[in-house]
Amino acid sequence: MTEPHRQRPLEGLRVIDLTRALAGPYATLLLAGLGAEVIKVEDPRGGDLARDNSPYVGRDGISVEKVHDDDLSVSHLTRARGKLGVSLNLKAPGATDVFLDLVRSADIVVENFTAGTADRLGIGYAAAKAANPRIIYCSLSGFGATAPEGGKAMDIIIQALSGAMYASGEADAPPVRIGIPIADMLAPVFSVIGILSALEQRHRTGVGQHIDVSMLGALTSFVAIENWSAMAAAGMQARTGLTVQRLSPFGVFECRDGFIALVAVHEKLAQGLFRAMKRPDFADDPRFATRDARVANAALLEANITAWSCGLSVVDAVAALEAEGVPVAPVRHPDEALLDRRVIERREAVPVAHPSYEADIDLRTAGVPIVFSDADTGFDDVLPIRIGEHNDRVLVDTLGYSPDRIDDLRARGVI
Amino acid sequence: MTEPHRQRPLEGLRVIDLTRALAGPYATLLLAGLGAEVIKVEDPRGGDLARDNSPYVGRDGISVEKVHDDDLSVSHLTRARGKLGVSLNLKAPGATDVFLDLVRSADIVVENFTAGTADRLGIGYAAAKAANPRIIYCSLSGFGATAPEGGKAMDIIIQALSGAMYASGEADAPPVRIGIPIADMLAPVFSVIGILSALEQRHRTGVGQHIDVSMLGALTSFVAIENWSAMAAAGMQARTGLTVQRLSPFGVFECRDGFIALVAVHEKLAQGLFRAMKRPDFADDPRFATRDARVANAALLEANITAWSCGLSVVDAVAALEAEGVPVAPVRHPDEALLDRRVIERREAVPVAHPSYEADIDLRTAGVPIVFSDADTGFDDVLPIRIGEHNDRVLVDTLGYSPDRIDDLRARGVI
Repeated sequence: MTEPHRQRPLEGLRVIDLTRALAGPYATLLLAGLGAEVIKVEDPRGGDLARDNSPYVGRDGISVEKVHDDDLSVSHLTRARGKLGVSLNLKAPGATDVFLDLVRSADIVVENFTAGTADRLGIGYAAAKAANPRIIYCSLSGFGATAPEGGKAMDIIIQALSGAMYASGEADAPPVRIGIPIADMLAPVFSVIGILSALEQRHRTGVGQHIDVSMLGALTSFVAIENWSAMAAAGMQARTGLTVQRLSPFGVFECRDGFIALVAVHEKLAQGLFRAMKRPDFADDPRFATRDARVANAALLEANITAWSCGLSVVDAVAALEAEGVPVAPVRHPDEALLDRRVIERREAVPVAHPSYEADIDLRTAGVPIVFSDADTGFDDVLPIRIGEHNDRVLVDTLGYSPDRIDDLRARGVI
Repeated sequence: MTEPHRQRPLEGLRVIDLTRALAGPYATLLLAGLGAEVIKVEDPRGGDLARDNSPYVGRDGISVEKVHDDDLSVSHLTRARGKLGVSLNLKAPGATDVFLDLVRSADIVVENFTAGTADRLGIGYAAAKAANPRIIYCSLSGFGATAPEGGKAMDIIIQALSGAMYASGEADAPPVRIGIPIADMLAPVFSVIGILSALEQRHRTGVGQHIDVSMLGALTSFVAIENWSAMAAAGMQARTGLTVQRLSPFGVFECRDGFIALVAVHEKLAQGLFRAMKRPDFADDPRFATRDARVANAALLEANITAWSCGLSVVDAVAALEAEGVPVAPVRHPDEALLDRRVIERREAVPVAHPSYEADIDLRTAGVPIVFSDADTGFDDVLPIRIGEHNDRVLVDTLGYSPDRIDDLRARGVI
């Protein structure tokens, strides 16, 4: 856990977190890292699905199966960081009262049930607003809160529908599944923008509102920033694989022991590349001497670059291009990327460990990738190891419930 | 242009926008769509690089080359929507005074110069803060404002360094360039979160601060949410191409005329898939009857699914699986994705056109993928067609400059 020393930007705000799996919990993770108090509500009969994600970490290190009671899913460990955990069976009689008491104490609610479910349970925006008109209530779903057809919206389904999968890969080859859960991750980022924008509006109006973010919409809006229809109308190829020939030389090239990405679109950069290739004569070769010529002869130019780079290690190819000022980078494995000194210093990727056991491997996960000059980011040293880990802290200290009332809720299976 | 009728969440806030290309302008585009007034500052000697991006749109429709004076790059048309444009040569004597007057009138500054450049020009955070202690100043760069080595941080360079490229693609095949500019797009989204968080903090403290977001850090934090080192320690394959065998059946499968994505991890879904395949007997087949068995025999199961799906059109395969309640989607072309009825209704992708000419094709671009119950999103009907398009409006109306002063600035090449 990181330990913030200065104030965090969202201190003093409280979030009631009804989310499960990845998309919703990542939204509330960002809010927690920015300083909000997040109270994660889990069903006492099983809790967040992410608790059952393999692999696990515990007293024996990393394992595929859950062996000991206190083994923790790495997914849960990373996504529930800095959150208080309370248990609440939202279908039990009386649970809604507890939920609405939480809402009265809070600024923000986030849920990612299938569209319509929260309303059916009596914990939707209408109920929350009636209890607390200042509440900002964010619903995160596959296709939007008003979508007629619900449908299960897993990351891969949204990748397929959005065009993101089609846009990646070689022109004549199958589409590519993007190897990071981009659809699951983008919708929560926009949810946080929606929540913070509504907070700003609340400073003017005094009242909250409902925020509704769709996984399909968030990822499709990213896809839409490329000018697909205009490029097609102009006869420009949109899906071009590892290189982009209309910007040639631009793309990913093979080396002896890996791959590099390079960009040498403009004149000065192209000449630098030619010098690195020990072919300065290309700068005067009519086939490569101008940007238009390089684009027209892109296939031949790319073949020449590959013939050169294939004979070099990644390290040597990068060094040769850097020496000539050509933008270049090795295609790195995530493990290496997460150990980048710059990323570690800025806490954009951060270490994480089981609260009770030293991990025998270096577990790293997402930080908050924003550096503030006059605030910290980072996570409180709390984690709901068990479901309902912080029931007493929240129900007594925050809501002022009596021990008798809590016993009664427990006896009736509400918490 | 969309026309907001209700208030937008960020109304009353003013943004001074020094950004160029994609990453920075997308940040200020989101702020404009959320209701902030964005004043885009461009060098009178050339303006935003995106003005020279092919293709163009104008009186003759779409073209690869700029033909007429008022042909507009589609990139500029989409990214400068809703922004006022002023010209300012930041290197000219006296330009800093104009910039600081803008800062005094504003809440937010956003810049994406190479790290260190803004300070050298006398328009960095220190200068802005001295002029207006309430200013929130966001720097967006490749590796962070404090990175010792600057380096050009194009999208493809950051994709390579972050691990995102390596994580995509088949285990034994080359890495994959993700076909949407994910690194360029993610950093601005986190910049907006940083800006809005600082606004919230400013409501408590009365003062602004510096926000510093790195393209490498933003994308690496996304990569870091997957448990790479834990999966490796548990012997689980991380980079698995179109399917994920540890969740089998899960992935992208070929049909006669395209591809579908499907997820049938759990018992009920697997049985639905088997019925759709007209192989209900698989549910009792010891090779496929349990989740563990399906994972152990994933290659065989995937071969069976492919043999079935290859005989069907995408439409028929999707229909067959939907009828059995199995999550499934066609892998859609971006053009089709941008015409999704749900996405259009929610304005997550929106039409755009040259202000003066009817486009002969349907140009669509990114909207703001957030739906507010008590606010609108959308863009004011302004666009800096020429550099300095709104000089008079801003310099006279906002800053109160006299016509003489403006003439003098123009004569000296400051604006």
